Amino acid sequence: MSRFNEYFLMKTEDVIDYVRDKLNIFPDNAQLSCVEIGDGNLNYVFRVEDVETNKSIIVKQAGVTARISDEFKLSPDRNRIETEVLILQGELAPGLVPQVILLDNTMSCCVMEDLRDYTIMRQALISHEVFPKFADHITTFLANTLLLTSDVVMDHKEKKKLVVNYINPELCEISEDLVYTEPFNDINNRNELFEANKSWIIENIYKDDALRLEAAKLKFEFMTNTESLIHGDLHTGSIFINKESTKVIDPEFAFYGPMGYDIGNVIANLIFAWVNADATINDEHKKAEYKDWLEKTIISVIDLFSNKFLDLWKINVNDKLAKENGFDRWYLNRVIQDTAGVAGLELSRRIIGLAKVKDITSIEDINKRVKAERICLSVAKDYIKNRSDFREGNDFIQALNNAERLFK
Amino acid sequence: MSRFNEYFLMKTEDVIDYVRDKLNIFPDNAQLSCVEIGDGNLNYVFRVEDVETNKSIIVKQAGVTARISDEFKLSPDRNRIETEVLILQGELAPGLVPQVILLDNTMSCCVMEDLRDYTIMRQALISHEVFPKFADHITTFLANTLLLTSDVVMDHKEKKKLVVNYINPELCEISEDLVYTEPFNDINNRNELFEANKSWIIENIYKDDALRLEAAKLKFEFMTNTESLIHGDLHTGSIFINKESTKVIDPEFAFYGPMGYDIGNVIANLIFAWVNADATINDEHKKAEYKDWLEKTIISVIDLFSNKFLDLWKINVNDKLAKENGFDRWYLNRVIQDTAGVAGLELSRRIIGLAKVKDITSIEDINKRVKAERICLSVAKDYIKNRSDFREGNDFIQALNNAERLFK
Repeated sequence: MSRFNEYFLMKTEDVIDYVRDKLNIFPDNAQLSCVEIGDGNLNYVFRVEDVETNKSIIVKQAGVTARISDEFKLSPDRNRIETEVLILQGELAPGLVPQVILLDNTMSCCVMEDLRDYTIMRQALISHEVFPKFADHITTFLANTLLLTSDVVMDHKEKKKLVVNYINPELCEISEDLVYTEPFNDINNRNELFEANKSWIIENIYKDDALRLEAAKLKFEFMTNTESLIHGDLHTGSIFINKESTKVIDPEFAFYGPMGYDIGNVIANLIFAWVNADATINDEHKKAEYKDWLEKTIISVIDLFSNKFLDLWKINVNDKLAKENGFDRWYLNRVIQDTAGVAGLELSRRIIGLAKVKDITSIEDINKRVKAERICLSVAKDYIKNRSDFREGNDFIQALNNAERLFK
Repeated sequence: MSRFNEYFLMKTEDVIDYVRDKLNIFPDNAQLSCVEIGDGNLNYVFRVEDVETNKSIIVKQAGVTARISDEFKLSPDRNRIETEVLILQGELAPGLVPQVILLDNTMSCCVMEDLRDYTIMRQALISHEVFPKFADHITTFLANTLLLTSDVVMDHKEKKKLVVNYINPELCEISEDLVYTEPFNDINNRNELFEANKSWIIENIYKDDALRLEAAKLKFEFMTNTESLIHGDLHTGSIFINKESTKVIDPEFAFYGPMGYDIGNVIANLIFAWVNADATINDEHKKAEYKDWLEKTIISVIDLFSNKFLDLWKINVNDKLAKENGFDRWYLNRVIQDTAGVAGLELSRRIIGLAKVKDITSIEDINKRVKAERICLSVAKDYIKNRSDFREGNDFIQALNNAERLFK
C-alpha cells in the first residue's frame, strides 16, 4: 500500500518518492533531485529535477497552517480549489496558466509544469524590466476567465454549481479582514505602519470616516456579489513572466466574487512598481521612460480589457436580457468602478496592513519611501471615494499624476 | 421494512399509513381521514385528521414535475430546502411560520402544523377583509429573517455554508424566466395577455426598451447578490392569516438573494388587492375605506420594516465595518430601492406572464379589468425605472395614486 494514502506534510525526500509513486514521467533509473522553492505564505513548493536531463516539474502541497503565521488555520481544500481553477482557467484562457499534471486531494497536492524560463513579475518590475506583451496577455486572461464564468455567458444552473464548488470561506475571510477591514480601522488590527509615516496615516486614513464607509460598501460587494469565478489574489507575485509569455499562478483564493477584484489588484500592483521606479531609479531619463511604460501598461490593462470584454460579450452572450442594447456598456462601467475601488483597497492594505510588498519595503531611503507610500495612499483614497467617476485607463493615470504632484 | 424507504408519490391512503408509520401523534385505534387540499403549483398537500377528535396535521409532498405543467421538471430537493427554511425562520421569527413536525428527505415530504383557523390571505383580501396586525407581523418576519441571515449579523463563514445549503438552481430558474425575462420580451415567452389589453401592453411594455434594460439590471442583481436567505415567493398566496396571527408558508423558492425581493412581492400583492377592491366594491364609501386600509398597510410595510431593520441592526450588527456610522442607512436605502424594482416586476409578470393572480382574473367587468391591469403596469414601470427615488412608504403610495389618476 502506498504511503501517500493519508495526508502528511512532505519533505524533499518524500516528494521524490511521491513523484516516482504517482507519475511516469521520469525514467525508472533517473537520478532525481528536489528543492523547496516556495516563498508564498500558504504552501510548500518543490522542484523535482532529473539531474541528467534537467527536465523538471513542480509539486505544490498545501499545509494546514499558513507559513506566515500559525494563527491562520486553513483547510487544505484550497489545494483542490486552486488546481481545479487552474484547469478551468487553462481551458478558458489557453497558455496563460501553468499546465496541471496531477491533482491529489488526499495529499492536498498538485503537480504542474515547471516555469523555469519565467521570473516572478514583482521581482522583474523591481529590476525595472519591461514586458511589452503583458497588457495584452493579462487582459485576455481577465476578460476570458471573468466574463466566460459569469451569468452573462454560462447556463445559470451550471454557474450556480460552480458557486458551490468554489465556495472558499477561509481564504475569503483572510481577504475580508486584511484587505477590507483592518487597513481602515485603528482597533483590533494587525497593521504595521512604517514609523516615519505613522502620524500621516493616522491622520489621513484612520480618521477618514467617509473612506471607511466606502470600504464598508465595497466589503459587502465582495462578500455578496457572486459575479464571476475570480482569481482572488492577482498581484504581481502571482504572475510568472518573460518577454514572450505570461502565466498566472496560485488561484487558491479563487471564489465567485466581483470581476473588479482581479483587475483592481493588477492595477494597484503596477502602481507599486511605478512608485518603486520613482524612488529607486536615479537616471532621470530612464526613470521617466520606465514610469511611462508602466503608465501605458496601466492604461492598456483597462482599455484592452474593456475592448476584449465587449467583443467577447457580443460573441458569447447567452442570457436573453443581457442582450439588451446598452446593457453590456452599463455592466462594463460597473466593473471598472469596482476595479477602481479594489485598486484603492489593495494600495492601502499593502502599505498599512500585515502583508507588505517588496516594491515598497525595498525602498531604502526613508524620505523616498514616505513619499512612495503617500502617493499610493492618496491615489487609493481617490480610487475608493470617487470610483464611480472612473471609466477609462486614462482616468486611472490622471489620479496617479494628481497624487504625484501633491508630493513633488 | 417500511414501504416509505424509497420515494413514490403518495395517494391519500398512503398518507394515512405514512403518518401511522412515522409519527406517534394519533392513538393507535384512531380513525384517520385524509384529503388532498393543495392548490399550489408544485406540491401535494394532504390533511390527515382524527375523525373523532378533529385533531389534524398537514403532510406536504413534492412531486417530480410541477402540477401547473409537466414542462417544469423539478428536483424534489426543494422539499428539504422548504422544510429546513421553515425551521430556521421559526427560530428567527417565532410564531410567524407553521411548526414543523417531521422532515423526510427520502419521501421528499414534511409534516407540519395544520393552520385550520387561518385563510389564505389572497382569498381574504379578495373578500375585502382587513387584518390590522398584518403589517406589524409581516415586517417582523421580513426584518428578522432577512437581516439576521445576512453578512451584517452572521459569521461570514457560517453564512457561506448557508449559501451552499440553500442553492436552489431549478426554482431560481423559474423566477429568472417568469419574473425577470418573459414579461418584458415579445419573443419565446409563455405570456398570456388579456385580450382587451393586448395592444396596450405591446405598446407600453414590449416596446419600452428602457424598461427592459432596467429589468436586465435587476435580473443580474437577483442572480448574483447573495445577501440574505430570502423566502423567494412571498405573495399573498403564501400567507395564512386571521385577525390575530400571520403565518408565512411555502418557502420552497428560498435561496440567498436580495432582501428587496421578498418585500417587493408583499407590496405588489397588496396593490393587486387594491385594484381588485377598486374594481369590485360597489359601495363608494366602503371602497374608499378598504383602499385606504390597504394604502396604510403598504405604507406601514415599508416604514415599519425600515424601523425594525434599523433597530435590529443596532442590536445585532457584528461585522466591524458595518458598524460604521451611516452604513445602516445607506444599506437600507438600497434595500428599499430593490423593493420598488421587484414590486414592479411582480406587478408586471402577474398580469403579462404565465402565472396570474385571482385578484385580477376574478374581475369580471372587462373595462374594469383593463383599468386594473393598466394601473398595475403603470405603477410597475414607475417602480422599476425610478426605483432609486423610493425611500418611504408614502413614495410607494404616491406612485399608485399617480397611476390611478391616469385612468380616472
